[in-house]
Amino acid sequence: MAHVRNKQVILRDYVSGFPKETDMSIVESTLTLKLPEASNEVLLKNLYLSCDPYMQILMTNVEPGSVSYAHSLPLTGLGVAKVLESGHPDYKKGDLIWGLTKLEEYSLVPSTQIQFKIEHTDVPLSYYTGILGMPGMTAYAGFFEVGSPKKGDKVFVSAASGAVGQLVGQFAKLTGCYVVGSAGTKEKVDLLKNKLGFDEAFNYKEEPDLNATLKRYFPEGIDIYFDNVGGKTLDAVLLNMRVHGRIPVCGMISQYNLAQPEGVTNLTNLIYKRVCMQGFVVSDFYHLYPKFLEFLLPHIREGKVVYVEDIAEGLENGPAAFVGLFSGRNVGKQVLLVARE
Amino acid sequence: MAHVRNKQVILRDYVSGFPKETDMSIVESTLTLKLPEASNEVLLKNLYLSCDPYMQILMTNVEPGSVSYAHSLPLTGLGVAKVLESGHPDYKKGDLIWGLTKLEEYSLVPSTQIQFKIEHTDVPLSYYTGILGMPGMTAYAGFFEVGSPKKGDKVFVSAASGAVGQLVGQFAKLTGCYVVGSAGTKEKVDLLKNKLGFDEAFNYKEEPDLNATLKRYFPEGIDIYFDNVGGKTLDAVLLNMRVHGRIPVCGMISQYNLAQPEGVTNLTNLIYKRVCMQGFVVSDFYHLYPKFLEFLLPHIREGKVVYVEDIAEGLENGPAAFVGLFSGRNVGKQVLLVARE
Repeated sequence: MAHVRNKQVILRDYVSGFPKETDMSIVESTLTLKLPEASNEVLLKNLYLSCDPYMQILMTNVEPGSVSYAHSLPLTGLGVAKVLESGHPDYKKGDLIWGLTKLEEYSLVPSTQIQFKIEHTDVPLSYYTGILGMPGMTAYAGFFEVGSPKKGDKVFVSAASGAVGQLVGQFAKLTGCYVVGSAGTKEKVDLLKNKLGFDEAFNYKEEPDLNATLKRYFPEGIDIYFDNVGGKTLDAVLLNMRVHGRIPVCGMISQYNLAQPEGVTNLTNLIYKRVCMQGFVVSDFYHLYPKFLEFLLPHIREGKVVYVEDIAEGLENGPAAFVGLFSGRNVGKQVLLVARE
Repeated sequence: MAHVRNKQVILRDYVSGFPKETDMSIVESTLTLKLPEASNEVLLKNLYLSCDPYMQILMTNVEPGSVSYAHSLPLTGLGVAKVLESGHPDYKKGDLIWGLTKLEEYSLVPSTQIQFKIEHTDVPLSYYTGILGMPGMTAYAGFFEVGSPKKGDKVFVSAASGAVGQLVGQFAKLTGCYVVGSAGTKEKVDLLKNKLGFDEAFNYKEEPDLNATLKRYFPEGIDIYFDNVGGKTLDAVLLNMRVHGRIPVCGMISQYNLAQPEGVTNLTNLIYKRVCMQGFVVSDFYHLYPKFLEFLLPHIREGKVVYVEDIAEGLENGPAAFVGLFSGRNVGKQVLLVARE
């Protein structure tokens, strides 16, 4: 019976505002690689772990009754893992899966936390934390199902080089839309224009008047705003929406770290422009996953859809990788490589 | 050829913030009751004129290219009128119509401004400025088409005793919903509970913590918030929406008079609760008007739906009646009676 070291990222203290590296710590324990007797759980070796903005919310403990991480236990998060032992008939040793696991090297999880078995391994495994995982499904559901795009639509995406945004832009181009993205560095803007196929892109940090910027890129207004950031950007967008425009609200990362969120002042524009602002969460759309793979895998294989990843190596770099999401240090989808196989 | 006095309410100056009575003035001119040669316009005698919050927006002149009232000309607004002469084959002398006319005693308008000919006169004519006119259609379209109500839904309506709100509440009860309304005086709250059939009602001016108030009336949360006011009320509602809730955005009267609108800070709740906030304007729904009449007229005749009106008499009282909308002085739909027939 093998005993292994199990490095873990644990939560030291609840967070208010920006998470800092010191809110987490790395601990090591020893694990016996054996399922408990009569368990229907699954023992996983984690390969790629996903750093996602929503995790910040689980690190706070503001509302009674809301779901939070537990103190001194490893953070949970999505990841790609290999099944070492399985107490559930749907999974067997050697299977590759993606789903909700923990930020550690080995995890024992209920089989219900497994999202999907990985069937296609001719693409990078890490893709199942991103383009073929939760962020990919988020972009697909948010753009196609919530955004109802039509050919010729003018599309604006914020956090456009991020895990979700870079796909929304590419999906928009596949649909025959005009698409502009915003990001926070010159490097990201270059990526958007030169690698990801956006028609235009700008660095929002260099635009003192976002309303004027949007008027420049969208003289006729915006049909779809895929909102990843909320706050001031959303407020400027509201001044520039077209009649019957749609705003799929995917995230509001600019607000997560604020004790008092910025006020959005231009909501009256929803009325005259008949705009629909629709919040959504990807878990409502996982029934579409097979259809999504069928749509996306051929595009990936043919190189028609690309994906930019920012891969940190080693569990001990997890806290820094996660914290970097909130300052925009990552370029593309932030992944944490724990083991290659 | 008859010459008549034509009293008019004209715009003296563009408004920023609350309109004041002195922003308008009453002028008198003389009109010849004769259509111009070869005109296809319609000459109207105005009977009931409608005072509606949207008119404040037309009194401002902030954005270049936006539609505003013209200086020194009579305000335009919806009303019920009698056709005196018609240059258009669809209308003849003696017809009663409702549509866009002017705040004056007699108006010459293009026939395209007539919304509908009035066919049912066994109900008060003034109803065609309210329950059977634009506000009625607004409540109907906003609640049924945009709100997608189901039996058992928990519904909250702001400005609940107003022209639109009082109908939304009654439509909600007809649908088998639980409905709570907010208003700004004890008299209005009593109306909501005792005459209009709301399950509960409260005076928002006496509630220091709207979030706590809503939690008291909606311990399980709100399925539909019919928004007439925006601002702080909307912000508190966002904390109390249920999963897959809907917010038809009809108006944001609390914001129209502010140079700098209040910020709405709780929009992230749209995401986790998958809430749809949908702005709408009634003009997109007028094709449903025959269906609406078919639904509503029997209810009115049977007394199952009632309507509270606040009727000011005489054109010279128009400015005060209109201005009163913004301080909530009116109880029910504000109408201006110009002539009975």
